[in-house]
Amino acid sequence: MPPFAQQLETPDSLHTKEWMRRYQRIRQASETLCAPLCTEDFVIQSMDDVSPPKWHLAHVTWFFEAFVLSPFLPRYRPLDPAYDFLFNSYYETHGVPFPRPCRGTLSRPVVADIYRFRAHVDAAMAELLASPPAEHVAEIVRRVELGLHHEQQHQELLLMDIKHILAQNPLCPAYRDDLAAPVVRTPAESDWLEYAAGIRVIGHDMASEGFAYDNESSRHRQFLEAFQLAKYPVTNGEYLAFMEEGGYERPELWLSDGWQQVGREGWNAPLYWVKRGDGWYHFTLGGLRPVDPHAPVAHVSFFEADAYARWAGARLPSEAEWETAARGMVMTGNFVEADFLQPTAAAGTGDGPVQLFGDVWEWTGSAYRPYPGFRPLPGTLGEYNGKFMSGQMVLRGGCCATPAGHIRPTYRNFFPPHARWAFSGLRLAREA
Amino acid sequence: MPPFAQQLETPDSLHTKEWMRRYQRIRQASETLCAPLCTEDFVIQSMDDVSPPKWHLAHVTWFFEAFVLSPFLPRYRPLDPAYDFLFNSYYETHGVPFPRPCRGTLSRPVVADIYRFRAHVDAAMAELLASPPAEHVAEIVRRVELGLHHEQQHQELLLMDIKHILAQNPLCPAYRDDLAAPVVRTPAESDWLEYAAGIRVIGHDMASEGFAYDNESSRHRQFLEAFQLAKYPVTNGEYLAFMEEGGYERPELWLSDGWQQVGREGWNAPLYWVKRGDGWYHFTLGGLRPVDPHAPVAHVSFFEADAYARWAGARLPSEAEWETAARGMVMTGNFVEADFLQPTAAAGTGDGPVQLFGDVWEWTGSAYRPYPGFRPLPGTLGEYNGKFMSGQMVLRGGCCATPAGHIRPTYRNFFPPHARWAFSGLRLAREA
Amino acid sequence: MPPFAQQLETPDSLHTKEWMRRYQRIRQASETLCAPLCTEDFVIQSMDDVSPPKWHLAHVTWFFEAFVLSPFLPRYRPLDPAYDFLFNSYYETHGVPFPRPCRGTLSRPVVADIYRFRAHVDAAMAELLASPPAEHVAEIVRRVELGLHHEQQHQELLLMDIKHILAQNPLCPAYRDDLAAPVVRTPAESDWLEYAAGIRVIGHDMASEGFAYDNESSRHRQFLEAFQLAKYPVTNGEYLAFMEEGGYERPELWLSDGWQQVGREGWNAPLYWVKRGDGWYHFTLGGLRPVDPHAPVAHVSFFEADAYARWAGARLPSEAEWETAARGMVMTGNFVEADFLQPTAAAGTGDGPVQLFGDVWEWTGSAYRPYPGFRPLPGTLGEYNGKFMSGQMVLRGGCCATPAGHIRPTYRNFFPPHARWAFSGLRLAREA
Amino acid sequence: MPPFAQQLETPDSLHTKEWMRRYQRIRQASETLCAPLCTEDFVIQSMDDVSPPKWHLAHVTWFFEAFVLSPFLPRYRPLDPAYDFLFNSYYETHGVPFPRPCRGTLSRPVVADIYRFRAHVDAAMAELLASPPAEHVAEIVRRVELGLHHEQQHQELLLMDIKHILAQNPLCPAYRDDLAAPVVRTPAESDWLEYAAGIRVIGHDMASEGFAYDNESSRHRQFLEAFQLAKYPVTNGEYLAFMEEGGYERPELWLSDGWQQVGREGWNAPLYWVKRGDGWYHFTLGGLRPVDPHAPVAHVSFFEADAYARWAGARLPSEAEWETAARGMVMTGNFVEADFLQPTAAAGTGDGPVQLFGDVWEWTGSAYRPYPGFRPLPGTLGEYNGKFMSGQMVLRGGCCATPAGHIRPTYRNFFPPHARWAFSGLRLAREA
Repeated sequence: MPPFAQQLETPDSLHTKEWMRRYQRIRQASETLCAPLCTEDFVIQSMDDVSPPKWHLAHVTWFFEAFVLSPFLPRYRPLDPAYDFLFNSYYETHGVPFPRPCRGTLSRPVVADIYRFRAHVDAAMAELLASPPAEHVAEIVRRVELGLHHEQQHQELLLMDIKHILAQNPLCPAYRDDLAAPVVRTPAESDWLEYAAGIRVIGHDMASEGFAYDNESSRHRQFLEAFQLAKYPVTNGEYLAFMEEGGYERPELWLSDGWQQVGREGWNAPLYWVKRGDGWYHFTLGGLRPVDPHAPVAHVSFFEADAYARWAGARLPSEAEWETAARGMVMTGNFVEADFLQPTAAAGTGDGPVQLFGDVWEWTGSAYRPYPGFRPLPGTLGEYNGKFMSGQMVLRGGCCATPAGHIRPTYRNFFPPHARWAFSGLRLAREA
Repeated sequence: MPPFAQQLETPDSLHTKEWMRRYQRIRQASETLCAPLCTEDFVIQSMDDVSPPKWHLAHVTWFFEAFVLSPFLPRYRPLDPAYDFLFNSYYETHGVPFPRPCRGTLSRPVVADIYRFRAHVDAAMAELLASPPAEHVAEIVRRVELGLHHEQQHQELLLMDIKHILAQNPLCPAYRDDLAAPVVRTPAESDWLEYAAGIRVIGHDMASEGFAYDNESSRHRQFLEAFQLAKYPVTNGEYLAFMEEGGYERPELWLSDGWQQVGREGWNAPLYWVKRGDGWYHFTLGGLRPVDPHAPVAHVSFFEADAYARWAGARLPSEAEWETAARGMVMTGNFVEADFLQPTAAAGTGDGPVQLFGDVWEWTGSAYRPYPGFRPLPGTLGEYNGKFMSGQMVLRGGCCATPAGHIRPTYRNFFPPHARWAFSGLRLAREA
Repeated sequence: MPPFAQQLETPDSLHTKEWMRRYQRIRQASETLCAPLCTEDFVIQSMDDVSPPKWHLAHVTWFFEAFVLSPFLPRYRPLDPAYDFLFNSYYETHGVPFPRPCRGTLSRPVVADIYRFRAHVDAAMAELLASPPAEHVAEIVRRVELGLHHEQQHQELLLMDIKHILAQNPLCPAYRDDLAAPVVRTPAESDWLEYAAGIRVIGHDMASEGFAYDNESSRHRQFLEAFQLAKYPVTNGEYLAFMEEGGYERPELWLSDGWQQVGREGWNAPLYWVKRGDGWYHFTLGGLRPVDPHAPVAHVSFFEADAYARWAGARLPSEAEWETAARGMVMTGNFVEADFLQPTAAAGTGDGPVQLFGDVWEWTGSAYRPYPGFRPLPGTLGEYNGKFMSGQMVLRGGCCATPAGHIRPTYRNFFPPHARWAFSGLRLAREA
Repeated sequence: MPPFAQQLETPDSLHTKEWMRRYQRIRQASETLCAPLCTEDFVIQSMDDVSPPKWHLAHVTWFFEAFVLSPFLPRYRPLDPAYDFLFNSYYETHGVPFPRPCRGTLSRPVVADIYRFRAHVDAAMAELLASPPAEHVAEIVRRVELGLHHEQQHQELLLMDIKHILAQNPLCPAYRDDLAAPVVRTPAESDWLEYAAGIRVIGHDMASEGFAYDNESSRHRQFLEAFQLAKYPVTNGEYLAFMEEGGYERPELWLSDGWQQVGREGWNAPLYWVKRGDGWYHFTLGGLRPVDPHAPVAHVSFFEADAYARWAGARLPSEAEWETAARGMVMTGNFVEADFLQPTAAAGTGDGPVQLFGDVWEWTGSAYRPYPGFRPLPGTLGEYNGKFMSGQMVLRGGCCATPAGHIRPTYRNFFPPHARWAFSGLRLAREA
């Protein structure tokens, strides 16, 4: 079993018992997120990009079965051999996956079966981690670590997908009725931060920075011309000004593909926004709520972010610019643990950029392409990231649905330019 | 409230108490059919034509709310006003219905809510039928009768849809594991029955024959040339001979639209058939089972039925020919009460046509068009049948999923020529 | 070579020299119709249903090559063997045809090549008809006759397709600037004609009535209840009243498929109609012209015809009713020879129905299905009509683009219910 | 009229008479390219991305009318005001353009009209350039220069589109029968060239390098890690080895979007390749010819280029790497003037990269996005390049259909990753 070239030879000094504790904590978090759901909610696929919640719960479990238990626990027996086909997402070299757009046609295995599957795998993982074979322990730990990050990624997807599923429903059902309303704040003045020209080192440092995905490597140099970055992300109030000045009706503000999308889909506001007599509301995981003008705008596509930036006389930052600004910043913010599940108005000011982490994923102007020297993970796990490097744009910084421990300054998220169901917003940049 | 012109002035002499008993029995039958389902099964819409089982349960209930309780029970309060929008199928003059292809995106109201809705409506119906307003009693009874036939129609759709939903699943889950296997029988010789030329009276006689849908009227005369009708429907074994002689590869056997469908969809056998090493199997409500060569072929489209008939040197009967043969026949057969939920080999011979009723709906060669003098029901109920009179073909006789009391010799079922998820088969005819 | 079962053993007593004269006259008429075209006009396929004019010219020629010259003139050599593939329309048993929607991608053979192909085939036909082999002369004559009717059918299609092609063009180019404007007439009062109930003989009599297509046979009996037929077709003025009373906005007037079509396509008037400041205009083969309120409405689909009839408290006639009315009527009318190429206001009154023949094809309420005893032509020619007998509705009577000699009381034209690019209108019927 | 920020204040010292000579030469070249066409060829749109040749001829003429004559020659009168709508390609701020996919539905204006339009505009341009208004001369010259580059770009598109149009035709008609066959050469050994790490200056220098498109600015610094570049582009023979080793059947070689495209479109070779008994042929502008194993492979998509590179253990160069290698190289090569209209085997070796310019556009690994400091042209001309900066990949170096004077080391061509109808090939790169 070859080691992952882009990781440390001994990636982690933790005892496997400690890994088991992490494993249990993160696995439990997925189930906690699903606790408010009705059985019926687990089954729905509201568009091709969305997966039924029960599929998420099963797929992250399959990951451990396929990549940890099957290779490293010889006495492991699958609960049901069909799951290997049903819950493979897209690993073509592992086997032909069940077609993605059909995930919503499967009532069986039922939700209770999925939980049984989770328990079955969890028991086997406990067994494996209690006495791992010495010659494989490093590789096992690497894969467990990857599997847990994978599960955290799906925790965020779960919330995005649940929101999309419930939003289709004319009843506007809330995912949770007990979500705290964010504090109302006096907005800070918008401001620009300056960054000098120079060679910047971009990407993850495998030698000293712990876990990262393969797509954050290799660490390499980029020359950046001097630039300015907005201190705050764009707010709902600012975005409303764009809308009110005809943002969705002026072709000169839009990329050609974006303008066609606007026409085809009839876009005239961010996803989930609806106009009522007294103003704009949006569907949130807490139900339909008035739009807070001071909170960062979310659920805009890259096309909308780009058009907004053009309207504002600015542009989106490149991912290298964003990462330059993020280096050295404290990674606190409105993450899933804050339990708002919605972007909130900025809490403070400080010297550097505010709300870089959490609240909303920030669209960058960078297409998602490999870094110089990029090597995907060996074997089937190499399909994790690299094969999606066309047709997508990079987003940075995590959002209000991201687990706090899951984000990094070098973390590269990516979506197609028309996608809007993520908590995606923007922050402006411009030439110095 | 105008009476239905095509029904008796006093359509029924039953006491409303008797109607309440009928109501309870038929309403209960819907729930009995759904008893074997898991909660998750209730949510799925496996194609646009299929509705989630919970939608069926709610829609048939909405029918009584919208057409009986709202107009005739002034103190009736809907359980949830949104249901009037969610569970309206296609009555455009009642209000804009929720889009059909999106029925599978609704997790809420959950299944338990739907059952509460049923209980709520059932209680109100009991109240209304216990003391109906005298001036409306005839109209109420007419609508109750229509609503119960409507519910029986949906009982059959429920089984068709459940079969389609489960068939998408690579696990091939059975709807019920306890379905009896039909008796194996020695097949009878195929044979032709003769019918003389002459004027036939076609359609339902409102004055003497009890309930019928509007599309079975008005009763009128048709001249039929002499014809022959096959004693038995076409069996799986006969259909296999067609397949083995290249039935699906010979364009000269097919209508042009059918031939394009064959190419586009890759049809090479009836729906639900799969070839295994030792022969053909098909998915049934009891799971995957070997194809019985002596049972009537089912799940063929009109295009396949028509191609088979051409291959066999025959044709499909017109609906008038079929009705002529059916007049006076005893309406026994393999209906839903037989609890096979699958067509079975012919049980007997007798003098006339065998298996006319039950087992499989028989495609006729008649396009679904209005009879001379057809008048739809007045008001919104007029959308029940008449507006579907284009692009569809008539089927006759009921099937193994039809409630026995629901069928009539004049009953006109209809599907588009490419549809295959009904229990649809065929019986041959030819010129005398 | 088997005789056509549904024709006379000796279908025609004409000398083959006379057939040659007919051949030349009808072949010439196709070229005369194309004379006003620019080379560029010959190439366009404005929708899948439309063929480029040069394709029509070649395809009708191919018909004689494939079905007359190849089998009966041994020394015949094709001008180009590829044409057999390129200009086969849909005869699957003759060979896989070139895909219909791609006809507009072929610049070559160029128009001049097509005319050379016509001359090449015409010369060979002259040779064959000058000294036909005695044992095949009857069959040759039968096929020539069929081929000439086929070419006349395509003459009408040519005009329909040219109109559609030019109508796409924002320049609104006229096919001909010299088309005579019809005389303006005082409209007659609308009126109903009465027909008694009884057995009617429907279909073509092969023994005495000369040529007909296979789909007009076999002659058979139908019982018709008493009915009324409108003396005149529906006019533009009457159709405008329907439009002004919300005809396109009232779902209760429409078949379900039609209503969806209205929404999907945004229909609010017949095809080719445009509203200008001072009223309605429509694109004609003579360019954009004001709509004449007294001329029959044209370019309406079956769905629109059916909705109009419902709005008017009437219905469409069945094809048997129409044929009953047409029997014995003189077949004069506004045909292609009148050179209006547009329906015109009724010229007279008389006792029976007016404008039954010519002006507009009249949608009937009958689906296009085989008559009792229908047998398609033997061999590949059997694909001429029979395989289209699903999903289409029958139209009767010919139109202003039909050659006068091409129509019969028994002639069954057919189009899908959404089609509008034919000169299709309607005449009302109702129960007596 | 604001100057173009990214060009010289006085962009050119040429006398306007000299500009008139250039104008005439380049305008004539478009007509020379179209000389071998039949009138029918001018009309076809074989897919949405292709435009009819007559549309190209008119659109490039419209460019001068809309952007030079209308603003700067007050007495100019359009030949036909409708052309402003018909021949606007995509300038939304100029007016709503005629829908692109419908360009092939327009037979009028006919080809002769288009040539009249060209002559009309040419005459007015001669008049304007003979005595340009002094205060606008600099702007006029800038726009003429842009218009001529625009026309040269369309000359290449014309050849690409003509090739695609003729390739649809089963007759495989050659655009020209007189195209010279390239000399057969002994292939050179493949080899790698080394480039050191360092800061590179990328983009066009407006102060000293003459004309460039806005998307080549602003000139800026990029840090490149050390890399290697292949001396030669990938040849047909090398690509065949990829095909023979299952290149089109191995998902691990492909980007996910590419793999789906392969499945959906059934790709198994470059566009225009067909297998005959004795090997591979491809359709060329000279007709169907055997594939030359030593010539560069063409008509591959980015997806195929990327998969090939992965298979070869290499990658595509970034556009900055490519430009670094191209700086200082002589821009000779197989351009349109060589009159092969097909890539040819390498003619020589030399020290640096061979065939960088001409033969085939080389896919880079860079997504088409703005350079730092990019500003589109002011006004409507700003839609020329900038609005296409999503969803496309950069290609470099020109091809056998590019006019020699049209290419630059900084020239950024772009196509979507699935596009194959350009003469697009690839050259490998890898880490040092």
